[in-house]
Amino acid sequence: MSQDTSSSTAYTASLHYDRRLYRQDIAGSMAHVRMLARQGIISKRDAQAIVKGLADIQEEIRGGTFPWREDLEDLHMNVEARLSEKIGEPAGRLHTARSRNDQVSVDMRLYAKEAIRDTVARLRQLQQALLDQAERHREVILPGYTHLQRAQPVLLAHHLLAYFHMFQRDVERFQECYQRTDVLPLGSGALAGVPYPIDREFLARELGFARISDNSMDAVSDRDYLVEYLADAALCMAHLSRLAEELVLWSSQEFDFLRLDDRYVTGSSIMPQKRNPDFAELARGKTGRVYGHLLALLTVLKGLPLTYNRDLQEDKEGFFDTADTLHATLEVFAGMVSTARFNQGRMRQAAEESYVLATDLADYLVGKGVAFREAHGIVARLTSYAKEQDKRLHDLTLDEYHQFSPHFDEDVYKVTLESSVAARDVPGGTAPARVEEALANARALLKEGTSKATRGSGNTPLGRRKR
Amino acid sequence: MSQDTSSSTAYTASLHYDRRLYRQDIAGSMAHVRMLARQGIISKRDAQAIVKGLADIQEEIRGGTFPWREDLEDLHMNVEARLSEKIGEPAGRLHTARSRNDQVSVDMRLYAKEAIRDTVARLRQLQQALLDQAERHREVILPGYTHLQRAQPVLLAHHLLAYFHMFQRDVERFQECYQRTDVLPLGSGALAGVPYPIDREFLARELGFARISDNSMDAVSDRDYLVEYLADAALCMAHLSRLAEELVLWSSQEFDFLRLDDRYVTGSSIMPQKRNPDFAELARGKTGRVYGHLLALLTVLKGLPLTYNRDLQEDKEGFFDTADTLHATLEVFAGMVSTARFNQGRMRQAAEESYVLATDLADYLVGKGVAFREAHGIVARLTSYAKEQDKRLHDLTLDEYHQFSPHFDEDVYKVTLESSVAARDVPGGTAPARVEEALANARALLKEGTSKATRGSGNTPLGRRKR
Amino acid sequence: MSQDTSSSTAYTASLHYDRRLYRQDIAGSMAHVRMLARQGIISKRDAQAIVKGLADIQEEIRGGTFPWREDLEDLHMNVEARLSEKIGEPAGRLHTARSRNDQVSVDMRLYAKEAIRDTVARLRQLQQALLDQAERHREVILPGYTHLQRAQPVLLAHHLLAYFHMFQRDVERFQECYQRTDVLPLGSGALAGVPYPIDREFLARELGFARISDNSMDAVSDRDYLVEYLADAALCMAHLSRLAEELVLWSSQEFDFLRLDDRYVTGSSIMPQKRNPDFAELARGKTGRVYGHLLALLTVLKGLPLTYNRDLQEDKEGFFDTADTLHATLEVFAGMVSTARFNQGRMRQAAEESYVLATDLADYLVGKGVAFREAHGIVARLTSYAKEQDKRLHDLTLDEYHQFSPHFDEDVYKVTLESSVAARDVPGGTAPARVEEALANARALLKEGTSKATRGSGNTPLGRRKR
Amino acid sequence: MSQDTSSSTAYTASLHYDRRLYRQDIAGSMAHVRMLARQGIISKRDAQAIVKGLADIQEEIRGGTFPWREDLEDLHMNVEARLSEKIGEPAGRLHTARSRNDQVSVDMRLYAKEAIRDTVARLRQLQQALLDQAERHREVILPGYTHLQRAQPVLLAHHLLAYFHMFQRDVERFQECYQRTDVLPLGSGALAGVPYPIDREFLARELGFARISDNSMDAVSDRDYLVEYLADAALCMAHLSRLAEELVLWSSQEFDFLRLDDRYVTGSSIMPQKRNPDFAELARGKTGRVYGHLLALLTVLKGLPLTYNRDLQEDKEGFFDTADTLHATLEVFAGMVSTARFNQGRMRQAAEESYVLATDLADYLVGKGVAFREAHGIVARLTSYAKEQDKRLHDLTLDEYHQFSPHFDEDVYKVTLESSVAARDVPGGTAPARVEEALANARALLKEGTSKATRGSGNTPLGRRKR
Repeated sequence: MSQDTSSSTAYTASLHYDRRLYRQDIAGSMAHVRMLARQGIISKRDAQAIVKGLADIQEEIRGGTFPWREDLEDLHMNVEARLSEKIGEPAGRLHTARSRNDQVSVDMRLYAKEAIRDTVARLRQLQQALLDQAERHREVILPGYTHLQRAQPVLLAHHLLAYFHMFQRDVERFQECYQRTDVLPLGSGALAGVPYPIDREFLARELGFARISDNSMDAVSDRDYLVEYLADAALCMAHLSRLAEELVLWSSQEFDFLRLDDRYVTGSSIMPQKRNPDFAELARGKTGRVYGHLLALLTVLKGLPLTYNRDLQEDKEGFFDTADTLHATLEVFAGMVSTARFNQGRMRQAAEESYVLATDLADYLVGKGVAFREAHGIVARLTSYAKEQDKRLHDLTLDEYHQFSPHFDEDVYKVTLESSVAARDVPGGTAPARVEEALANARALLKEGTSKATRGSGNTPLGRRKR
Repeated sequence: MSQDTSSSTAYTASLHYDRRLYRQDIAGSMAHVRMLARQGIISKRDAQAIVKGLADIQEEIRGGTFPWREDLEDLHMNVEARLSEKIGEPAGRLHTARSRNDQVSVDMRLYAKEAIRDTVARLRQLQQALLDQAERHREVILPGYTHLQRAQPVLLAHHLLAYFHMFQRDVERFQECYQRTDVLPLGSGALAGVPYPIDREFLARELGFARISDNSMDAVSDRDYLVEYLADAALCMAHLSRLAEELVLWSSQEFDFLRLDDRYVTGSSIMPQKRNPDFAELARGKTGRVYGHLLALLTVLKGLPLTYNRDLQEDKEGFFDTADTLHATLEVFAGMVSTARFNQGRMRQAAEESYVLATDLADYLVGKGVAFREAHGIVARLTSYAKEQDKRLHDLTLDEYHQFSPHFDEDVYKVTLESSVAARDVPGGTAPARVEEALANARALLKEGTSKATRGSGNTPLGRRKR
Repeated sequence: MSQDTSSSTAYTASLHYDRRLYRQDIAGSMAHVRMLARQGIISKRDAQAIVKGLADIQEEIRGGTFPWREDLEDLHMNVEARLSEKIGEPAGRLHTARSRNDQVSVDMRLYAKEAIRDTVARLRQLQQALLDQAERHREVILPGYTHLQRAQPVLLAHHLLAYFHMFQRDVERFQECYQRTDVLPLGSGALAGVPYPIDREFLARELGFARISDNSMDAVSDRDYLVEYLADAALCMAHLSRLAEELVLWSSQEFDFLRLDDRYVTGSSIMPQKRNPDFAELARGKTGRVYGHLLALLTVLKGLPLTYNRDLQEDKEGFFDTADTLHATLEVFAGMVSTARFNQGRMRQAAEESYVLATDLADYLVGKGVAFREAHGIVARLTSYAKEQDKRLHDLTLDEYHQFSPHFDEDVYKVTLESSVAARDVPGGTAPARVEEALANARALLKEGTSKATRGSGNTPLGRRKR
Repeated sequence: MSQDTSSSTAYTASLHYDRRLYRQDIAGSMAHVRMLARQGIISKRDAQAIVKGLADIQEEIRGGTFPWREDLEDLHMNVEARLSEKIGEPAGRLHTARSRNDQVSVDMRLYAKEAIRDTVARLRQLQQALLDQAERHREVILPGYTHLQRAQPVLLAHHLLAYFHMFQRDVERFQECYQRTDVLPLGSGALAGVPYPIDREFLARELGFARISDNSMDAVSDRDYLVEYLADAALCMAHLSRLAEELVLWSSQEFDFLRLDDRYVTGSSIMPQKRNPDFAELARGKTGRVYGHLLALLTVLKGLPLTYNRDLQEDKEGFFDTADTLHATLEVFAGMVSTARFNQGRMRQAAEESYVLATDLADYLVGKGVAFREAHGIVARLTSYAKEQDKRLHDLTLDEYHQFSPHFDEDVYKVTLESSVAARDVPGGTAPARVEEALANARALLKEGTSKATRGSGNTPLGRRKR
């Protein structure tokens, strides 16, 4: 059987990707050994030897001097073999009351917990960047779009905060995923528990887990927390891809709303005039990769009987690549957003040149007593007329207005981008006062989140938003 | 433009699937109109006429007498046109301070909230069925499997509780999704808010929402809660597919662990001897459909700029089909599990015929002072020998045992399925005492969940597990 | 067992979607019965009675008078029960030498063959629409884009032909899929073949299949042709989503390259100025649905042992919805493309206002002996200067040119959009002469395809492109 | 702009995965340079210098002495920079009449062509292994399954050939994909073609492409051939996952049909009795990864406007990993299948112990003049009776048979596994004579395929099956 031979093939090997779990693996082993000694299952002396040996190995790996052996198919076998070389016979005691199944599981959960904390911290940075830009552009007006058609004027700050709130939901989801990740599987044995008087609560405390798993058969084959992370990441990438799309659109000559910093564009060897938003495009493309990893793990789980099956080894690479991708992308976006220069003049011009005040003109007529549907018809005709004349609504004379309705008056010229925005004075609306409130709330949210994140930076659960 | 003509094509029509939102749509409209009157935006008389008209329409739809018009592409246009016929001019006031974008959004959120409550209730029923069977089979032992190889003996109750805990995590996820669904978007207008002094908190109270949305641009294009439901459903279907796989395996002549009730098997017109577990197979197959719906909506969202784009109309059918599929599947499984008859004799025989006590024999030797690795080697040779002799371990004589190690003694015959199970006496392990605890905890969890679900059956948030 | 009771549940029912297979089912049964009589397996008299009964049933279904029974879970049971009512005892003979597994399989293959022919015909229509527009706009120049940045001038015809070629590859793929669909499974029985002297080649001829399946166990569980159709459809939808994206972009006020016909835009009840490209957006969104169906069926197949398992019933709805969606979308696009009006002036202006001739200026300098990299640097600086001066390259004076390089001469003004396009005079390039060739080739391809499609409209394989 | 600085970030870097394209990149460049010299676009001397420099670089890379620079983000920049170091100024001429877009595209197509040839060769090996085992087990009978219930007896050879035919369809699909891959994009420039008198047909001949691309804008953004490969690979993995599932099932103690070679099982450190089919399980799990890569690339393409966008850089890693995964899995399966030992005794016993002859008994009665439905009812009752008596059908006395029908006679004992199998004597059926034919056809198919594959091992298209 391949375990016993040196011919263990490349097909089942995982060393090339699981070696990144070395810190978690060694921490898990140390806690386990301390527990075994504390419970009298192994001797204190053996425990000390093992802990010492593991500490040395950790130094070797960290320092790049660890003699990795490709003929041993994974991290765990490498560490064990090395420990044996170092301390001899007591090394074997490390596996008392533990199976490979619950060992690998605890490693991944420790790793995932760190990854989630990292994810949340990076989301916070991007939210901060969005908030900073929103605060810096409190008075900038641009056309809000539906169907990629200019619709109604909005504040740039309001537009940016829309993304802030998407990422806020992402933060919440990751925090909830954290709670289901924060469960110690160790002590489940191969599948049925272990026949030793171990102390699982001690292990949980040592390793910083909030609680222990409820059922050993579930614990050794549970990959829910990884699926959940991948699903949360997929939705977060969907949000980033939406923002990426807008950065690409806004960087085009047609929109010209935005100048990305030189760090985030590339030129062309052939076409010197170009400023390609490669980072935003690549991020949009990387959405596919994360969706793919989610589907991959769901496919792995489909139809798998209890308990551990080797299929589950496929849980790692997709997770690592997802976390790496998401983290790098969040970092790029935080930088890209915070260094972007918005072309306020062009935004305003786009709003003015279009007919985004049409709704307000209809509301104006309604205010004068015209029925809504009739007002809408009048403005539709008026807008068509203006378009044909190649005029903006503001450039029409009062006489021209009167051709469409006698209810227009001098005060029609008081319908402006500013008045339009100000009129949307409802909670969640784009009126400056409401946006100020929203900015203040966002600041508070980040402050709260940050302070909790700091507290949470040990092994305790992350702070969650009160509702 | 197609809106103005009768040629609105089948391509954009949604009436065939959105008519199931009629209760939500009418409830949303009634609340909106009451609010408008309360705020003095429309007259009380108009409001009463509209509410009365909507109530009539609801009766017509419920009673099957509503004159659906296919030439009007969706539910909303049908209701509006009918309202106009019924009450004339005031019907137009219904759309004051509201856009189609926020109207549809509130309908879907109301619907999704009901769906989630239903999902959780059905998950509870399946958990109850699993728990009942577990309690009924407290003492049944079967082989626990890893790699579909018989590994170590476990209690059937322990095996069933593994699924209980998977579904418990599903319940938690759906409850958390509920909280993000429970947000009122109404008042967001087309994208920027509305220029009327509306009262969004009143709307939230009337419609039973826990809070109002923070940003109008986000609110009209936010489909996160639907993606999240689909992701939670995908993982839940993954769990169901695992259980389905085991029901199929256990129903095979090879395993013969289980007899599904006649309601859940079908015969063959050609092969009279067959009892096909079609329901379990079909459920396993329907996993694909739910995965597909998740990926479909993620694909829709990828790269979509703000705010509303018509792509988002594609959010509904997949959601409806997912909830329908999941609900039907959960119901089938609750019935299938609670009526299944377990073949205890065959389970025990499978455990006895195999070498699932090998681990325990090794542990026995370790208890006699043999080093773990050596003990393991001895038992491996012993097992091979027994296999060749076509004997069970219990059938070997002490002499035969002694051929492999002098440490074996008479008490080796005390290593039994019962002693093996009893030895896994750790929290989460399969020892009878631990499983009793687990059963009690599961009972408590369901009781708590049920009482909360009852309270939650109005419009208040579902109860969540304390941790 | 549920087959024997009237309680067959809604869960396993397929009548609501498989009734669309009635023509195929009846055709398959008629051919089978004729073959049975021809081989002397049943009497000619019985065969005649059955064929007559089936013909009547077909008329009833077509005419809407067929008494569908929901208590019979699928089309096949409905047809059988009705046949029994009509002709009594001989009805039972219909199932001689045939199982439900190979019956359903032949129905789906007949249906899929028709669907593929339809798909190809609709692709041809869209290609024709693209070609017609390309021919009508032979001389229109617009900026070609990379990274959504204006890059180099191209002919509109060249741009449209890029899509023509994507769809050409789709046509090829569907034609190849057709060949693997065009295989008769009938005669495979439940899984092992049938114990009757049937004539499978006769069945193939009768039903218009090119060949018979090779292995009965494979045949009853083979869904490859459906996966392949879904994969081909997914890629085709990806192409359509790209075109949709461009239609949306080009319809925006920022680009303003295109005016979609009124049939393909909708207005807004609130914002009268808008022309929303809903059809293009919805098509882009429907890409998700088709991707989802592909992944759903792949998920169904994963890990399924031989031979038929009820999971496979999940093959139909996704296929039907995919074909329906693709066909409707292709039809919409054919109409949308052929009625679109291109804004040639705005396209030219976009090309002129930008620096799409920068590459050509660099090439100009290379022609004057400047090294490529140096030329590139000169033009980069020149372009920056022009941008700062808010001038187009053409508006710079020769003196200004000379500030950047002495190699500029009067003939620099001969570098124009036209000269740029004409210079790309390579096969596949945008030079007018090359585009003329490409148009001619495209016309020939369609002509050939159409004539073959006509020939192919019976049951013979579709024509395929020679290479 | 990042191109010009040394700060090119890790985010956009592709060197870690695109360096595997070095042979293709250098071959493409050499052909390009030769063409440029031949056309008089650059001097022969420069061309020679470049070709020599590239040859040296190829040696350096092959020999592991190439000085890779991480600060240059991809393979192409590394090669260029090195070429410049080596030969100085002429190095710049390499980029005459070529863009990065068409350079990368030609590299990938060259690589994909090799990958497809490799895929087909490995599929052939697996088909050969299946065929060899089938030929070796011509007379072995086992129960054929539907719904994982024993259904009817079949020959093991017939069962194995079912997989042979799945893989045959895979071969066909990959060969067709090859034809669409075998298209030269070089000469498309950045998007519009190049302003030089290049000879694309010469390039195609030099690089072994069957034809040149038709449209430059399509060519630089066409990734269809990669999507197609991924889709073909996904379906092939679905087939492998089905075979894997059966290997896992058959290796279980419950089935015990199969003993995998020691190379393909692993033991357990805790449970010495186990032979875990890890390779089959892992292969089944890797299906998820390949499905994921397909979805990822489809997601990348969704909604992407023409022409090149940086999103497309995401095409490579998924393709590489898919080809690597598929190739390794095919190799593992070829080995696993050819070394597997089938437990013929256990297979036969499973067939005998069950009621797989029930269909044949019903057919027997039909042969005696009993109506099919009545015969079916008789056999159903008979089977139930036998089950209750715990007897096999063969063990029933004629008296017992007569209790159910007077039509049973002594010759009922001639209904055997052998007679059952022999009776399915239709093309594609499991009768020994038919299986012999099928084996001969399969041998011929492989022979034909192999001889073509040999011829095809240069750069010419792979042989395709005649139909």
